[in-house]
Amino acid sequence: MSLKTDFAEMQKQKVRQIENILQEYLPKQKGCQKLIMEAMGYSLMAGGKRLRPMLMKETYELFNGTSRAVYPFMAAIEMIHTYSLVHDDLPAMDNDDYRRGRKTTHVVYGEDMGILAGDALLNFAFETAFKAFVMEPEDSLLIGRALTVLGEKAGIYGMIGGQVIDVKETGHAVEKEVLDTIYELKTSALIESSMMIGAIIGGASEEEVKIVEQIAKHVGISFQIQDDILDVTSTKEVLGKPIRSDEKNEKTTYVTLFGIDRAAEIVKERSEEAVRLLVSLSGENTYLEELLKKLIYREK
Amino acid sequence: MSLKTDFAEMQKQKVRQIENILQEYLPKQKGCQKLIMEAMGYSLMAGGKRLRPMLMKETYELFNGTSRAVYPFMAAIEMIHTYSLVHDDLPAMDNDDYRRGRKTTHVVYGEDMGILAGDALLNFAFETAFKAFVMEPEDSLLIGRALTVLGEKAGIYGMIGGQVIDVKETGHAVEKEVLDTIYELKTSALIESSMMIGAIIGGASEEEVKIVEQIAKHVGISFQIQDDILDVTSTKEVLGKPIRSDEKNEKTTYVTLFGIDRAAEIVKERSEEAVRLLVSLSGENTYLEELLKKLIYREK
Repeated sequence: MSLKTDFAEMQKQKVRQIENILQEYLPKQKGCQKLIMEAMGYSLMAGGKRLRPMLMKETYELFNGTSRAVYPFMAAIEMIHTYSLVHDDLPAMDNDDYRRGRKTTHVVYGEDMGILAGDALLNFAFETAFKAFVMEPEDSLLIGRALTVLGEKAGIYGMIGGQVIDVKETGHAVEKEVLDTIYELKTSALIESSMMIGAIIGGASEEEVKIVEQIAKHVGISFQIQDDILDVTSTKEVLGKPIRSDEKNEKTTYVTLFGIDRAAEIVKERSEEAVRLLVSLSGENTYLEELLKKLIYREK
Repeated sequence: MSLKTDFAEMQKQKVRQIENILQEYLPKQKGCQKLIMEAMGYSLMAGGKRLRPMLMKETYELFNGTSRAVYPFMAAIEMIHTYSLVHDDLPAMDNDDYRRGRKTTHVVYGEDMGILAGDALLNFAFETAFKAFVMEPEDSLLIGRALTVLGEKAGIYGMIGGQVIDVKETGHAVEKEVLDTIYELKTSALIESSMMIGAIIGGASEEEVKIVEQIAKHVGISFQIQDDILDVTSTKEVLGKPIRSDEKNEKTTYVTLFGIDRAAEIVKERSEEAVRLLVSLSGENTYLEELLKKLIYREK
């Protein structure tokens, strides 16, 4: 575990396991609805770090979770993340033709199907999470708590709320306070959801779930600031998407507000605080610790 | 109850009660997300028959339900119905500027906010339904069953599935079989969801829930065929939307397949079958019976 290659190998294996779970929960492509199922699979299986289901599973492991209810929730959170990207890329929103080096969903399937595939993924995320009731009926109350977090962090008090403020503020200069709200809602909320659900289903106390929420907030915000930094320091080839897009869209970011060096320092500070809180919890998960540290130095 | 005016008065009162419930569950407009909350309210409080929450509540009454969990589900089903209209009206879909005599959501708030308000309503529908866990924690298993129906009937195996087939078939001639699938999924699925959830939370047995699903299928399909008929026999003033839109969009309907008279007969046959099944159940709800009969002769 201490060697860099070991971690990379473990991460790859965990990503493969997550992708198997996603594949298992995706609808089997058949019947009159084959086309929409294909579009859902196209966007969901487009690669990516699978950070959200990974953080959920690792937090669940931290609390020595045993309920199988975690698996449908892992698929659900990635479906919600994916639907948000599909709708973000639409012509009326960011109008992006490429993501992760592939054509975006509406470019391949048309704008109407882009809207519907996003709707279908959001709805199917909840359908998938509801399978937990059949898998672990005796955990119904825990599942109810996990669903409440899943819904709230994805909606107007979470991700969608952040998206709305972001859409309305693009092209304006915004103050640090508004920027922090956007980052907390648009990026951090789903990371918080992932880790909190892992904790809840893993059997954490309410107090512990609150600490996990704080950890995830630090992780989510540093993740977004690192994104700002990579947008000016990386290359299109490494990122798999155009660089300097914030500049092009006249977006205020941590880099425009504080410069690259100070932004990098803030990432480091918040990540260290996340790790400090993590080790203060009673459980242990060295892979999760390492994962949080790696997020600081990620190159894409 | 036997006089026409009594029924109309009761219906008005029930619509008012439902609108109070919707208002209660809508997010309070404040903070940075005020705009999206306003757009959600604009579309949700635009009037309409409130048929889905009404059918849910009346079916729940039929089974002498006592769990307060029904209220958040009533709001949730209307939010899902409303989001589907908001996204249906988008330029990339049906491109409608008016609905129920008012400007559509994307016309008032912009296309980006139209997409986001629809997403927000769908997500908030589930968030709202999850409130049932806090209201009636001892009903968690029942709530889980109700959520499973809510999710499935709204998704690719229900409403969204029907929408996809409809989008792909508009402008083609389709056979009765395909048309029936579209009607079952696009229109009937949410009616089935409404009545089934009312039955589940009302305490119906699995067998009874299946009969309720059959009743609702008849109601949903006759409702859609009546829509086809009104599209050629009514006026813009009465309907609050342009007539002869099916012809304009080259849509196959029950009227184009069978003519007005035969279509009207089918509505009557299916509605009568729905009432026959309804009275075969052990409970009694004369208002619900009357409501199903009225759907046959509705003028808008």
